[in-house]
Amino acid sequence: MIRYNPTKRIQTALKNNDTKALKSLCKSLHPASMAGLLVDFEYDDVWNIIREVSPQLRAEIFSHLEISMQSDIAQHISRRELATLVTYMSHDDRVDLIKRLPEDVAEKLMSALADKERRDIQNLAAYQEGTAGSVMTSEYVSLPDHLTAQEAIEKIRQEAADKETIYNAYVVDREHRLIGFTTLKDLILARPDKRVSEFMSKEMIYANVNDDQESVARTIAKYDRISVPVIDENRKLLGIVTHDDAIDVIESEYTEDFEKFMAISGSHDSGGYLSVPVTRHFRNRVYWVIILAFMGIISGVVLHHYEETLSSMMILALYLPMLMDTGGNTGSQAATVVIRALALGDLGTKDIFRVVWKEVRIALMISVVLGILAFGRVMFLSRDAAIPGGFELTSIAWVIAVALSFQVISATLIGAMLPMIVSRAKLDPAVVASPAITTLVDITGLLIYFTTATTLLAI
Amino acid sequence: MIRYNPTKRIQTALKNNDTKALKSLCKSLHPASMAGLLVDFEYDDVWNIIREVSPQLRAEIFSHLEISMQSDIAQHISRRELATLVTYMSHDDRVDLIKRLPEDVAEKLMSALADKERRDIQNLAAYQEGTAGSVMTSEYVSLPDHLTAQEAIEKIRQEAADKETIYNAYVVDREHRLIGFTTLKDLILARPDKRVSEFMSKEMIYANVNDDQESVARTIAKYDRISVPVIDENRKLLGIVTHDDAIDVIESEYTEDFEKFMAISGSHDSGGYLSVPVTRHFRNRVYWVIILAFMGIISGVVLHHYEETLSSMMILALYLPMLMDTGGNTGSQAATVVIRALALGDLGTKDIFRVVWKEVRIALMISVVLGILAFGRVMFLSRDAAIPGGFELTSIAWVIAVALSFQVISATLIGAMLPMIVSRAKLDPAVVASPAITTLVDITGLLIYFTTATTLLAI
Repeated sequence: MIRYNPTKRIQTALKNNDTKALKSLCKSLHPASMAGLLVDFEYDDVWNIIREVSPQLRAEIFSHLEISMQSDIAQHISRRELATLVTYMSHDDRVDLIKRLPEDVAEKLMSALADKERRDIQNLAAYQEGTAGSVMTSEYVSLPDHLTAQEAIEKIRQEAADKETIYNAYVVDREHRLIGFTTLKDLILARPDKRVSEFMSKEMIYANVNDDQESVARTIAKYDRISVPVIDENRKLLGIVTHDDAIDVIESEYTEDFEKFMAISGSHDSGGYLSVPVTRHFRNRVYWVIILAFMGIISGVVLHHYEETLSSMMILALYLPMLMDTGGNTGSQAATVVIRALALGDLGTKDIFRVVWKEVRIALMISVVLGILAFGRVMFLSRDAAIPGGFELTSIAWVIAVALSFQVISATLIGAMLPMIVSRAKLDPAVVASPAITTLVDITGLLIYFTTATTLLAI
Repeated sequence: MIRYNPTKRIQTALKNNDTKALKSLCKSLHPASMAGLLVDFEYDDVWNIIREVSPQLRAEIFSHLEISMQSDIAQHISRRELATLVTYMSHDDRVDLIKRLPEDVAEKLMSALADKERRDIQNLAAYQEGTAGSVMTSEYVSLPDHLTAQEAIEKIRQEAADKETIYNAYVVDREHRLIGFTTLKDLILARPDKRVSEFMSKEMIYANVNDDQESVARTIAKYDRISVPVIDENRKLLGIVTHDDAIDVIESEYTEDFEKFMAISGSHDSGGYLSVPVTRHFRNRVYWVIILAFMGIISGVVLHHYEETLSSMMILALYLPMLMDTGGNTGSQAATVVIRALALGDLGTKDIFRVVWKEVRIALMISVVLGILAFGRVMFLSRDAAIPGGFELTSIAWVIAVALSFQVISATLIGAMLPMIVSRAKLDPAVVASPAITTLVDITGLLIYFTTATTLLAI
């Protein structure tokens, strides 16, 4: 959205040591845009650029940098510089950073912080990765319920500078237990002398601190909220999760699901594609590839078992790849649809029989179409092929088509069932990787293929 | 979050025609929760329940119903009831509904609406599906720049009831061109007599009305905004896209990408898994399955071409499935990683050579691992297999391992390159479906396999 080339401007300013130009650029751009421009610079350059601006803006730009860049910078600046930086960062972002730092750097940093900051970080850092607690921030507005609308607005105004969002205000009792919710909009629209307790919303939409972060994100999405409060088992208000964190959580959960499903085990949160080293990419992928290679031994054994059948009727070998590809494709399609439906909440684990019934009918339709196509393919491609005496191409084509149809049905059902079963076992359905389904239905496919052939052709 | 069983309560109240109970339930629950409960009821029951409450709340609950349920209800209530409902709905939601209605119902409805509403709907409905214009709403706050902070707050207060969000305010000139941006937070913190033009942000973060809806959603995510303004080619402010719409867009684009990648062509927006009829599921899946069947004919032709090689050395046929599965898996892994990186903006089309260089190195590592495993597998599984005279198992195992390694490298590169090329051609990289990659690398795999075998073994 910016027409001139700001990266060039930064380079020139850095070369000329033109701190004024750098400062004015930082000020004129949104911190996220500025951070985006700094991606291609070295960490020491980045630090030299952002140290010039006010501590608040510096912390904002810094928070938008990639976490690996943040960590590099944090390890190379003085303890005092780091303490100032961290003090101005938003409470959830700084906990993420400190968790990434080497222990000695983190310890030094903590000892340089003010008591209040240190306690806040320790509190937030205690929650397990992936929970609501791990993504919440403590910069929220809370109100006692006896305030009037006007008093509440005045309180919010005084605290506004330090809060991540001031548009949602949470009403608490004397023990800081959550008892209601109101918005700045409601406060502005209310009669100034009306008490908050009279018009606050009492329907409690909240997350427990140990809830899965994805379920908090879904709550925000479902109720179109700017933030959702996080409470402990005594209903005490601990923090809030904001809408922008919800988007981040949803995106990273999606990427994770997608990668899991495609048999990539690594966590993508280590950075962007290009910044992740080759060895890490290798590790993320090779794990599943090895498992699949070992799973594949089973189909190898089955194939060897039918070696003689294959030698006596070579033509069957020519259609093995078609059978295996088709099984893998239809099985993965079914799994994809079911996994997405589970993730979006369209399906629950109790729906398993409705899914079976639906998939049986879908699979029957697909199997008829593919059976006919397979029959035609054999008749066409193998019109001149060598066929053992006593057999006709038509009957062989018929056998291949029937086997393929059965394989489509079996693969579809396996693909649809596996995620349901896994999710029933309280695991993430996306661990059912598409290549694993392919390898599994390879085995059933081979068994179906050779059983059909030996039975129908009596070989 | 609600412990008692409200569905049962609704059923009882409906049976007893207890409108008071229904009304109080609607009032006590968040509209999204209420809509969630109504999912299992028939449309006439749903209408009977929500018609009891105030038009505003009724429209809110209605907006949270599934679009197919909304459409059913809209077609069965009187024109006047529908017009009232639509008048109270948020501007983007009602356009979505009207687009789904049969033409005659939509026309009757439009004629029953007030002039202002009708024009607003016509304006919003004119934008193409999938653009920023199609997801924006016209309920935003705009301010002339000469207002003071206090005057601005007063204006916002007066308009608040009708606006989707009042926390972002867009500053416009006399021609309604966007010239700045401020937040209610800034307004509250500013000195009351300070002019908006003095403290508004001038960095323009906006979307053009014809931008892809996904890019608007990404802008919201990147800048942590509650809303983003949408302008036309003359910088005239047309509407805003809000954070909750951004989440919806990201979710539906993601599901679409995932399904495209797994060769499912249908649009998932027709409803949940269980409510979509079997024939529709069939249509969504069979399209790709047929294309793949035809693509598969090419590998069939290649296989037939090498029929004699296979007959003379049966053992090669036994390792074909392993070669094909491995190629498909490694190719799909690479494609997944690249497609996600493109979608998240970590990669641009200009990075094609960096991707090639990265993937070559990853593929080399994986190919070594899998080559060794394949060698071991042949030596172990085929230790008793029939081998034509003049050949040793070791040299055959060696050939198979080498071919597999080449196949891993070629499949990885094809998998990584295809999305980059497609995205360079300005298409959605996710159209490169995983099964299509599998079918494609089947062909290259067969050529590599037989070329390696005939060359190294001289058969």
